Amino acid sequence: MTDDAVAQPTPDRTNRTDDAAAEPTHAEPTPATEPTATEPSPASPLRIRVVGAVAAGTTAATKARRNAPDADIVLYERDKDISYVGCGIPYFVGGEFEDVTTLRPRGPEWFAEKYRITVRTRHEVVSADANTRTLTVRDLETSEESTDTWDVLLLATGASPVIPPIDGVGTPGVFPVRSIQDAVAIDAWIDERAPRTAVVVGSGFIGLEMAEQLAHRGLAVSIVEMLPQVMPAALDADMAEPVAEELRRHGVELHLGRTVEAVEGDDAATAILVDGGERLPADLVIMSVGVRPNVALAKQLGVALGPTGAIAVDTRMRTSVPGILATGDVVENLSVLTGEPIWRPLGSTANKTGRVAGDVATGGDAEHRGVLGTGILRVFDLGVAHTGLTEAEARKQGYDVVTHTDTKPTRAGYLGGKKVTIKAVADRATGRILGAQVVGPEGVDKRVDVLATAITFGATAEDLIHLDLAYAPPFSTAKDPIHFVGMVLAAKIAKAREG
Amino acid sequence: MTDDAVAQPTPDRTNRTDDAAAEPTHAEPTPATEPTATEPSPASPLRIRVVGAVAAGTTAATKARRNAPDADIVLYERDKDISYVGCGIPYFVGGEFEDVTTLRPRGPEWFAEKYRITVRTRHEVVSADANTRTLTVRDLETSEESTDTWDVLLLATGASPVIPPIDGVGTPGVFPVRSIQDAVAIDAWIDERAPRTAVVVGSGFIGLEMAEQLAHRGLAVSIVEMLPQVMPAALDADMAEPVAEELRRHGVELHLGRTVEAVEGDDAATAILVDGGERLPADLVIMSVGVRPNVALAKQLGVALGPTGAIAVDTRMRTSVPGILATGDVVENLSVLTGEPIWRPLGSTANKTGRVAGDVATGGDAEHRGVLGTGILRVFDLGVAHTGLTEAEARKQGYDVVTHTDTKPTRAGYLGGKKVTIKAVADRATGRILGAQVVGPEGVDKRVDVLATAITFGATAEDLIHLDLAYAPPFSTAKDPIHFVGMVLAAKIAKAREG
Repeated sequence: MTDDAVAQPTPDRTNRTDDAAAEPTHAEPTPATEPTATEPSPASPLRIRVVGAVAAGTTAATKARRNAPDADIVLYERDKDISYVGCGIPYFVGGEFEDVTTLRPRGPEWFAEKYRITVRTRHEVVSADANTRTLTVRDLETSEESTDTWDVLLLATGASPVIPPIDGVGTPGVFPVRSIQDAVAIDAWIDERAPRTAVVVGSGFIGLEMAEQLAHRGLAVSIVEMLPQVMPAALDADMAEPVAEELRRHGVELHLGRTVEAVEGDDAATAILVDGGERLPADLVIMSVGVRPNVALAKQLGVALGPTGAIAVDTRMRTSVPGILATGDVVENLSVLTGEPIWRPLGSTANKTGRVAGDVATGGDAEHRGVLGTGILRVFDLGVAHTGLTEAEARKQGYDVVTHTDTKPTRAGYLGGKKVTIKAVADRATGRILGAQVVGPEGVDKRVDVLATAITFGATAEDLIHLDLAYAPPFSTAKDPIHFVGMVLAAKIAKAREG
Repeated sequence: MTDDAVAQPTPDRTNRTDDAAAEPTHAEPTPATEPTATEPSPASPLRIRVVGAVAAGTTAATKARRNAPDADIVLYERDKDISYVGCGIPYFVGGEFEDVTTLRPRGPEWFAEKYRITVRTRHEVVSADANTRTLTVRDLETSEESTDTWDVLLLATGASPVIPPIDGVGTPGVFPVRSIQDAVAIDAWIDERAPRTAVVVGSGFIGLEMAEQLAHRGLAVSIVEMLPQVMPAALDADMAEPVAEELRRHGVELHLGRTVEAVEGDDAATAILVDGGERLPADLVIMSVGVRPNVALAKQLGVALGPTGAIAVDTRMRTSVPGILATGDVVENLSVLTGEPIWRPLGSTANKTGRVAGDVATGGDAEHRGVLGTGILRVFDLGVAHTGLTEAEARKQGYDVVTHTDTKPTRAGYLGGKKVTIKAVADRATGRILGAQVVGPEGVDKRVDVLATAITFGATAEDLIHLDLAYAPPFSTAKDPIHFVGMVLAAKIAKAREG
């Protein structure tokens, strides 16, 4: 499936990244009417066809099966792997586990046996017609084509890595990080070529995870990031600083505010040329500058895209075309905070929207409530997480922002507690927490999840002070770091209002 | 200070425990009018007197100082230690750290220097008169008495361990676990007497923490619990089972549903006699059957107690007597869930109510929003936590309860993820989550804090499904255990409504 969405300019990561800056090519979506699927004729079982069988597609299919025991459900997947855990790829490459099949625990047989769902791998949907509700499918092994029809079509075509159009990008040794095949190819390259140096292009989530794991595997790693800080889509510059320090502390060289001009090498990559003429040795290159939604099929079907370039859906995952739903990384979602569409392709969101799509496909009334874009990663000994808006994003959105950054113990110092830094961003007018960033050696996931939960319910800074969180010395302190942040932030907001 | 509240019958733990079953000795409290403190004469600084200088008393005093630079603030504490971390005592006894002063990081000098607050230790307030606003204070070193007056009196007299009136309870080698002196005395007893066996009476939080730590220190430990399960105040019987297993797995003998009849031994404890005539060897006995609020002074002042036997306060920590506030373990709080008074003396709550009292004492308008009674402890390799109501409590309160218990991985199995069990209790009528219990080797604190946060905002089972929690393989799974619990519980509620 070719893909003509415009690549996102901000370097970022596969599968958990920022809005693609795709140009909208269609008008605002018209909410679809209920798919005809909701009232199938009892004589002919409901035909559900799903394009894409990773997280959202398979979740939707199994949810549909649980709702509709008689539905006729077929998934088409152009790849040979289905239902795989893309987020685990760096840890396979780094050798934290040996068996790549761990990342694809369920094959077509499992879905057939457990759910009576047909999954056709290496089958690409090459065209589709919304009027006749017909798909043309090519068997990539035999090149044979066949047609199929649907009552409900579910687009779960996902997203693909952006490969920037630079000289030498096709040289062997340059890899994206998205599919199981990418994982196997990188692993084989390291085994067979014994590269000593690696350059990771882009410092989003996948870029940093790969940098960590390539360093674990013994390579000398450099990161090239176009913007002047790491993780520009997730962190403000001040919170990116300790992350950069952690990378440097583990020997990763950072080249921030630099662009890649070419990959050098003949039969294999040997170096990266960056602006200013500097040459970084690179026996292996990871391209992790972002992803874009796979919308070619949607466009052919006349399905409207949204302002982010991903497919526009309503809260029930309905597209602008009746009978066609879309789900997972290929759709945009509403921001819980702003109510505006954002594109944050994440595995956790794909699971949620998949479930909604499967329910709605079979006449259910599930709804998706939108996203905060919560994300987390491990970088060596640090956890790094964010939820909601950064300070920079909040200012760009026009909020009158009050922030506080605090570093406090995660748990009793006498039991080995460490320190975690939380930056919280609030709206001066309402006191509402708009976002938070958390960095530290432990307790990061807990704090970001509590903050994401609080933000979901519209919590103010004052609300944080009152949370009755669990205290015992092995786990926390009597006043949690979240309480401290809430107290100071609430005081700053009160003062800002007086002033 | 003697204390005549009736002891709580349910065995439980010091400082973080269930309602005391004290009989109310006063009528419903009349909300106090604003203390005169709010409008001090500029000529004479506001006189704030605080009785008790552990968590709530010191927090209140420092908050008052920050609000009122000129106030005259004096704390009286009958103990010699102040501002200590009682929850850390088990870990000192167990040898996880060596220096007991770690638990009392700040002495009177610190408060004098940093906050210009006078703390008089070993000074007991032996009587008080609300009409003349006069205190009589005894210096416990010299036995000299003096008087003092207040504009605002703050009662932070805390709670004391219940010592059941059984034969031999005064035998050397029998210890409560509350003060730094208790910690030092137990530690010295172990060093000097080299006890080989210990019996812990009561299986609440402190009891189990002590059992764990005494076992770490090499003693053979038995627990006697009056009720047929461990942690009866915090866990339903089904969730107590894995905790009991963990204790047994580490060699702790459990005697559930048994009562202690006597402590045997002449100059030192040698055994515990339980009902039925069984004799448990006990060179050391820990009495951790619960605590009761220290309300003698409050009663003398005519301050109304609430239905739990602790001091009744409004959300601003005002008692029934104008000019007298109360805070910390000696007060009852409203349940966030039911709006009814409950007594859950916890260090985390003491910090919150101390801050409110200090603010209100100096004319501020802070309010306490009540408690869920969230608690957590470590038992060997397990974390055990609860928030809100147990199933048993919810049924007792009259809720039509729907529950779900689910065991799911905390994070990716291929990175060493383990399994956590969550039991969630919901109200069928509204779908609201009423409480949760969490048990597992990791990730327990995170899940209980997210659930406590969600419950605070009135979350339903359906709301849990939509939480945008942070996902990356080292920290979680794409669908968090909280999402799974929410999904099944929401489905059960929907089904229960249909049925």
